Amino acid sequence: MEEISKESLQRLPSYLRYLKQLHESNVTHVSSTNIAERLYLNPVSVRKELAFVSVAGGKPKTGFKVVELIKEISSFLGYNNVKDAVIVGVGKLGSALIGYKGFDAYGLKIVACFDNNKAIQSTQSSDKPVFDIHKMPDLVNRLNVKIGIITVPSNSAQEVCDLMIESGIKAIWNFSPTQLVTPSNIAVKNEDMAASLAVLSKQLDKILENE
Amino acid sequence: MEEISKESLQRLPSYLRYLKQLHESNVTHVSSTNIAERLYLNPVSVRKELAFVSVAGGKPKTGFKVVELIKEISSFLGYNNVKDAVIVGVGKLGSALIGYKGFDAYGLKIVACFDNNKAIQSTQSSDKPVFDIHKMPDLVNRLNVKIGIITVPSNSAQEVCDLMIESGIKAIWNFSPTQLVTPSNIAVKNEDMAASLAVLSKQLDKILENE
Repeated sequence: MEEISKESLQRLPSYLRYLKQLHESNVTHVSSTNIAERLYLNPVSVRKELAFVSVAGGKPKTGFKVVELIKEISSFLGYNNVKDAVIVGVGKLGSALIGYKGFDAYGLKIVACFDNNKAIQSTQSSDKPVFDIHKMPDLVNRLNVKIGIITVPSNSAQEVCDLMIESGIKAIWNFSPTQLVTPSNIAVKNEDMAASLAVLSKQLDKILENE
Repeated sequence: MEEISKESLQRLPSYLRYLKQLHESNVTHVSSTNIAERLYLNPVSVRKELAFVSVAGGKPKTGFKVVELIKEISSFLGYNNVKDAVIVGVGKLGSALIGYKGFDAYGLKIVACFDNNKAIQSTQSSDKPVFDIHKMPDLVNRLNVKIGIITVPSNSAQEVCDLMIESGIKAIWNFSPTQLVTPSNIAVKNEDMAASLAVLSKQLDKILENE
């Protein structure tokens, strides 16, 4: 079976958001060209990606049924099967992620939080109990959790990552600005703010030069 | 002049982090091959990117001087010229970004925070004063700020974006899960958690299938 590219995969959530907006405005049908225009994308790519994801497909004149396409993309992205995750590091960023209401919609559920700071463990500012990091292996194993989120400072990120892998975690979402070393059978997605900022900053320089 | 690709630009901060680790361990020289191996990258790409960024260049046997390369990449990424930014939306994510110590190292300084919630304005939980959103145009103009960070809920993101552009902001770092509509002379970088999660989730599926 053909595979979808990472770039295409990353665009699907924005299609889904636009489709939901259409649905809320009682729009029932949409064409791939319309989606491409609205999201400033190449219409050929959008058509290909929707053909890949949608079994029902679009009709020549009316396009795709909005409701159907929402279901198909959600299901393709696994938003219907809730995936459990644990998070290690309940500082400011960790708390923000724990309190983020949007994850439910994406099929992610944070089932346990860990931090080695005893003060944080006892305050439980985040509605969810915060456990000592030593309890992670047992909990991850018992609850069969496969996703680990790392929001600790850089200097302890690798250690946390190793402990996650030992515990049975298979996919790591890393918010620490550190290059993690992991075996090839582990999925890693780095949320690199420095990289984003580098791109934005260069674009800004170009804009200011041209003014 | 040739341009550096967005992908290359996004990799430079990770080179910089590795180089700083080497420097802390008193390593004085490094080859592009070594960097490529350590960061699991294509050695040809790394060699090209370093050739693009480094004026001093690497020597055939000893490679690059670590200290020199740190300076060159930092300067290329504009980390030496501090850039001022304003942030709108002082909820959990906004507070996390405001409290994030790492931005200094990347040349970003948040000079003013805005929120339309009067309770947040008066608590000032974040060390920095939080102003009413109506004060943004004047402040942005007076301080000559060009970067705006959006951390408001989706339904008010476009409105905030429009107000930022009217105020003179040229680069928008958007953390709201919304597709912003902006003129072509405005730089936008979306921090799309849903897109990241989609990629991680698909990778995890593949790993679990192969087990």
